[in-house]
Amino acid sequence: MPELDVVVVGAGLAGLSAARKLVAAGKTVRVLEARDRVGGRTFGGFLSNGVPVELGGQWVGPGQDVALELIAELGLETFPTYDTGAATTVVDGAVLRYTDASFGLPQENLAEIYRVWGELEALAASVPIAAPWQAPEAADLDRQTFDAWLSANTADSVALRFFRLVVPTLFCAETPELSLLHFLFYIRAGNGLASLLAVTGGAQELRVVGGTHRISERMAEDLGDRVQLGAVVRTIAATDDGVAVGFEDAEASTGDAVTARRVIVAIPPTLAGRIRYLPPLPAARDALTQQFPAGSVIKFHVGYPTPFWRSNGLSGLVTSLDDAFNLVMDNSPPDAACGVLVGFIDGAHARAAAELPKEQRHKLVVDTLVKYFGSAAAEPFDIVEQDWSAEEFTRGCYGGRLAAGALTQFGKALAEPVGPVHWAGAETAQEWSGYMDGAIRSGRRAADEILAVG
Amino acid sequence: MPELDVVVVGAGLAGLSAARKLVAAGKTVRVLEARDRVGGRTFGGFLSNGVPVELGGQWVGPGQDVALELIAELGLETFPTYDTGAATTVVDGAVLRYTDASFGLPQENLAEIYRVWGELEALAASVPIAAPWQAPEAADLDRQTFDAWLSANTADSVALRFFRLVVPTLFCAETPELSLLHFLFYIRAGNGLASLLAVTGGAQELRVVGGTHRISERMAEDLGDRVQLGAVVRTIAATDDGVAVGFEDAEASTGDAVTARRVIVAIPPTLAGRIRYLPPLPAARDALTQQFPAGSVIKFHVGYPTPFWRSNGLSGLVTSLDDAFNLVMDNSPPDAACGVLVGFIDGAHARAAAELPKEQRHKLVVDTLVKYFGSAAAEPFDIVEQDWSAEEFTRGCYGGRLAAGALTQFGKALAEPVGPVHWAGAETAQEWSGYMDGAIRSGRRAADEILAVG
Repeated sequence: MPELDVVVVGAGLAGLSAARKLVAAGKTVRVLEARDRVGGRTFGGFLSNGVPVELGGQWVGPGQDVALELIAELGLETFPTYDTGAATTVVDGAVLRYTDASFGLPQENLAEIYRVWGELEALAASVPIAAPWQAPEAADLDRQTFDAWLSANTADSVALRFFRLVVPTLFCAETPELSLLHFLFYIRAGNGLASLLAVTGGAQELRVVGGTHRISERMAEDLGDRVQLGAVVRTIAATDDGVAVGFEDAEASTGDAVTARRVIVAIPPTLAGRIRYLPPLPAARDALTQQFPAGSVIKFHVGYPTPFWRSNGLSGLVTSLDDAFNLVMDNSPPDAACGVLVGFIDGAHARAAAELPKEQRHKLVVDTLVKYFGSAAAEPFDIVEQDWSAEEFTRGCYGGRLAAGALTQFGKALAEPVGPVHWAGAETAQEWSGYMDGAIRSGRRAADEILAVG
Repeated sequence: MPELDVVVVGAGLAGLSAARKLVAAGKTVRVLEARDRVGGRTFGGFLSNGVPVELGGQWVGPGQDVALELIAELGLETFPTYDTGAATTVVDGAVLRYTDASFGLPQENLAEIYRVWGELEALAASVPIAAPWQAPEAADLDRQTFDAWLSANTADSVALRFFRLVVPTLFCAETPELSLLHFLFYIRAGNGLASLLAVTGGAQELRVVGGTHRISERMAEDLGDRVQLGAVVRTIAATDDGVAVGFEDAEASTGDAVTARRVIVAIPPTLAGRIRYLPPLPAARDALTQQFPAGSVIKFHVGYPTPFWRSNGLSGLVTSLDDAFNLVMDNSPPDAACGVLVGFIDGAHARAAAELPKEQRHKLVVDTLVKYFGSAAAEPFDIVEQDWSAEEFTRGCYGGRLAAGALTQFGKALAEPVGPVHWAGAETAQEWSGYMDGAIRSGRRAADEILAVG
């Protein structure tokens, strides 16, 4: 007899949500987590003044009902992202302020941006999120990179640069690296591009008091000693009546194993592919894990004595078509006891910035903030950075992307169980794929698969 | 003190060539091989009549000097691939025979094919094989998939289909899945597209008596008990004076470790990414292994009492723009004691064919051969197949490919040592990247890196 009903690999939102649901249904569960913390791609840090900042996924918004309900259920609170005053677009050296839907851009560029946007939304509407490879024109949509589609669909250089920035801000990768079909699926899964990009009314509308990692921490508290930290899963071997899950410690110095009827692998596809499976996985599943790379992003929190931009009538939101540090938002604590700007270097910029000495990287960030907000930005009291690609047990954020051709060929293998092995994680979600909400949904879906078979 | 100078991971042509060179220079070496055989992506099989057939890489040709010299050095012999009589192209239901450079195609299509071919060769000439990411137009060439470039450069439907077949026959993947820059690099590395595609005068000119796996077997004989089979490397951990390489048996039931000053990882990039490294590898190297998927191919050998096509004036070479079983060649033994046709189902076709029951797959193969060669092909005495994507310790052939954007971003990390960890394997080669010759060169290059530092 196996020791447990279910082993869950990974104590991020997906794995913990799966375990929570299984335990509620009376199953015996253990969650094996490689790190010495739970939370996966959510992670709490602090500025030097003690103010908590989110080093990973941090926003929730309308339509993310599952995440919002779980946050409430766990006794956590949300508060609105600061979104008052003028936002900023930087293009061709100009620092443009706007308070409408214009992005501060000239009317002719804006009209073209919204025309392309509309075409994208129309195409996305044709993609069924449960099976994007069954979209009516799936083969043709997947044959193209988003960059190729974009180049063929607009000649407006500002519109081109606008959408060439949208992809890095969502996938932390460049437009040629992403299948058009995968992008359309992602847009559809997140209720449309406006929903993905907006602060108020969109996926950046709300924050969690104390940080989103507290969602995982609260779930882990409820699970108690069912969560085992520092357990790096290396092997999942079929047994007569289930699986044996082999793991080792962070230093690979000691190993152990636990048996269960079933296992839920709730880590990103690439990392799931690095586990050894006995018997080996089907070729299609393995091929999928060979080509689902995670994005490249370095996230920065920059602390100031006050949110000085607010008194200048600025919301803190900056989108730059010119700069490596291209997306910035106000991330001050709810009481505005200090000012915090959060920003990202993503995609190709992140790959270059990762090679710089930390001091140069921080100088780049601060110099760019001075350009956006003036000389008051020159003297932060602290900078906290997080490079997710350097993390052994994440290897990139926000999530995985598929290049041209892969989704139609291998997408079906993403969430399809293989015998006693089930798959969860934000990438496997249908609604809100790639988001915290999707991660939670994916864990519950995997739990449901197991509960359905008893 | 470490037990050894060098541990080599993988006993394919790259790993064994590295070990051979290091041993010749007086180094102490152990080669750890996951399988119970050496040879990697070369592998010997037999038809039911005892005739040996090559289940993996099988041809060598002019310009592959390193492979040819090694074959001679090891006392093995080559013989010419049968290439007498008419070749066959199948297109739009027509079975066309030809004995010239026309591919049997109408002049107007042919002229367009050679025009596109010339453009490709001209572009390839701009790509430096030591650093393709430094090609003058590297960013632009890498931004495009080969499919996008092709679609933009010809409207001739036969030329389109011709080149859309070239990529699967070389990479076992489809044109949208491949960066134009990676394709150009590959063309340049193999002395041009004509060299890659030709039998006589090209990369399919010669075979090895008994099979190419004998190259590895002879090298392994010379290495003696330095080659350890059934050792699945899972961990490479830095020590004060080198590395500790942890491995387990095929069933993951027992583990062991060996220490060395340095290690050469001579397995495909994807598989190299599945080893755990302590400390973790740099982000760029890890990212590369996240997106270097191997091709999809099922190789078939079909045995007949005689090479009957020869007496019909046919060489046995068939290229079909219509069929899943799209590339066939005469693979009879040198004495023609029986007839053997070797053929491939590759790329998207392979992914579909792998889902079929074996009987249906074999029926597809035989039915297609009847179409190509007439009813005499209907009754083979044996069919041997090899699906490389199903192999745990290969996971695809012939080799890895990079999608749009990856080579310029991460290519530099492919062969660059990381401390005491060196990289070899056909994908890391400059000359003859992806070929047996390139694999041998890569192993020697990695050995040279180590010998250069003492």
